[in-house]
Amino acid sequence: MIRIGMDIGGTGIQMGIVNDQGVILAKDGVVTHTDIPFSEQISQMSECALNLLKKNNYTLQDLASVGAGVPGVADQRTGVIPKCVNLGWENVPFREEMSKHFGGRPVFIDNDATVAGLAESVAGVSAGTSSSVFITLGTGVGGGIIINGRVWNGAHGIGSEIGHMTLELEGEPCTCGNKGCLERYCSATAIIRQARQILQFHPESMMMEMCKGDLSAVNARLVFAAAKEQDPCAVKIFRRYVTCLAQAINTITAILDPEMFVLGGGVSKSGAFLLDAVREEVPKYALFKDAFPLPRIEIARLGTDAGIIGAAMLH
Amino acid sequence: MIRIGMDIGGTGIQMGIVNDQGVILAKDGVVTHTDIPFSEQISQMSECALNLLKKNNYTLQDLASVGAGVPGVADQRTGVIPKCVNLGWENVPFREEMSKHFGGRPVFIDNDATVAGLAESVAGVSAGTSSSVFITLGTGVGGGIIINGRVWNGAHGIGSEIGHMTLELEGEPCTCGNKGCLERYCSATAIIRQARQILQFHPESMMMEMCKGDLSAVNARLVFAAAKEQDPCAVKIFRRYVTCLAQAINTITAILDPEMFVLGGGVSKSGAFLLDAVREEVPKYALFKDAFPLPRIEIARLGTDAGIIGAAMLH
Repeated sequence: MIRIGMDIGGTGIQMGIVNDQGVILAKDGVVTHTDIPFSEQISQMSECALNLLKKNNYTLQDLASVGAGVPGVADQRTGVIPKCVNLGWENVPFREEMSKHFGGRPVFIDNDATVAGLAESVAGVSAGTSSSVFITLGTGVGGGIIINGRVWNGAHGIGSEIGHMTLELEGEPCTCGNKGCLERYCSATAIIRQARQILQFHPESMMMEMCKGDLSAVNARLVFAAAKEQDPCAVKIFRRYVTCLAQAINTITAILDPEMFVLGGGVSKSGAFLLDAVREEVPKYALFKDAFPLPRIEIARLGTDAGIIGAAMLH
Repeated sequence: MIRIGMDIGGTGIQMGIVNDQGVILAKDGVVTHTDIPFSEQISQMSECALNLLKKNNYTLQDLASVGAGVPGVADQRTGVIPKCVNLGWENVPFREEMSKHFGGRPVFIDNDATVAGLAESVAGVSAGTSSSVFITLGTGVGGGIIINGRVWNGAHGIGSEIGHMTLELEGEPCTCGNKGCLERYCSATAIIRQARQILQFHPESMMMEMCKGDLSAVNARLVFAAAKEQDPCAVKIFRRYVTCLAQAINTITAILDPEMFVLGGGVSKSGAFLLDAVREEVPKYALFKDAFPLPRIEIARLGTDAGIIGAAMLH
């Protein structure tokens, strides 16, 4: 059997035919249109998927399921997406609408970070583990939790929203209305915010030269590159980032203690520079570090394919 | 079939014969001796249990398992207890030693908070839920996590240590070596510490009269009783307590989103006074509160029997 996985993004929707081992057999995609009705959006996606099946000599008989990863919150139980800002969706019956096009084949949805975590646990760096926590370090911070080999997103579908765990009482105000959420400390957005603040007082920082004096050109990669070169301001931001991430990892360990943490998202592309620092920092705060092994920490391996693979693996 | 559950404490070890519904059929106990060798401690416990079986006309044939809840960390996989300060144990082979006395019947161990959480989920307030998080609010703060009806204590046995999740970066120093752990804010110890601090500057507080000027007599019950009477200092401590607990509940929800939170331990005996305040506070910080239901929050129901019942239910 084969499965269709759809990675729904604000600019494009990537999709693929995936086998049971999590290997992508064929890929295609459509541009995201937000100015057309929801049912039309779904028609365009399903048309692309059905063509992809046809081109690769598959029929609906070969199709076990269709899955989609959504950049927002998704109700796995009802198949409804309560809100997805990037797509302009509010309370859309995704599963119901999508399944019309696939002859009643089961349709699954989940949050994109959960989907990426599932992909890594099937065909990526956490393959072979029975529990893992995936943390996307991107514009925001998201999470995907696998327990006993299956996605865990909570009893009400609001779990694995790791970006909104409280890291600091009365800390940085968050877009969610709370304060001190992890996302305010460990997203690319947080890195950029801190760099812009610090550059106002330290124009001598290497970062200023790297962005050619244009603060709007500062991004997380630039800050980490300057930290690698030992620029004191960038090092300060990087160290703070690592400490916050390590504290979050320790909090999740104190609660869940997964076999492995997988770091994904844009910021994780800094690779060993980030990974080594986090691996060094985590044990400083860890409980029982002398009596029990700590969870392994790794960088995600599947890159952008994770969205397609994980969506296909939903069931 | 029946099971033996043992609730191991620093002053006494309570035990009982428990049926599959989590009902205690008979109870007994021994005094904890820490000045005798480990094997002797185990002999005393098992002798008590074997006598209890005999008195109630059961044989080892009727016994499905023996379980024990330990006030410390327990390695469920090996049956070894790395450290249990109250009993003076360090790296003791609990399972191996105990099973010698029960003709090879399986012996299980787990942390006492986990055991209490399991008991509530089998025969207490969270019975019928498939996922729950039990939080003991006592001298320390502990946790027990049930997912899909089974205890989840992590891949390395260091999960559900909710007392050591970070609530505040660079916060109150904790005995574990880290700073800002939940236990520093939501234990009875934390309430007492704050009351003693505040009473130094506010001798006019009702709490001073209640403890007859003896700060060593201040306890959590006294502080909450004064808060109920609207004593401003006590109200301040109580409000802070509720805020911290609500933030912890929201962090655990952002990660795990259980069906129910169960509050146990000494501080939870304040009942509706605490429960109502926490239920009112949690939604203030919750994500998605308009789109999804939040986990229920309840007070534990089984009291001190939870230790026996939950230990018996381990498997």
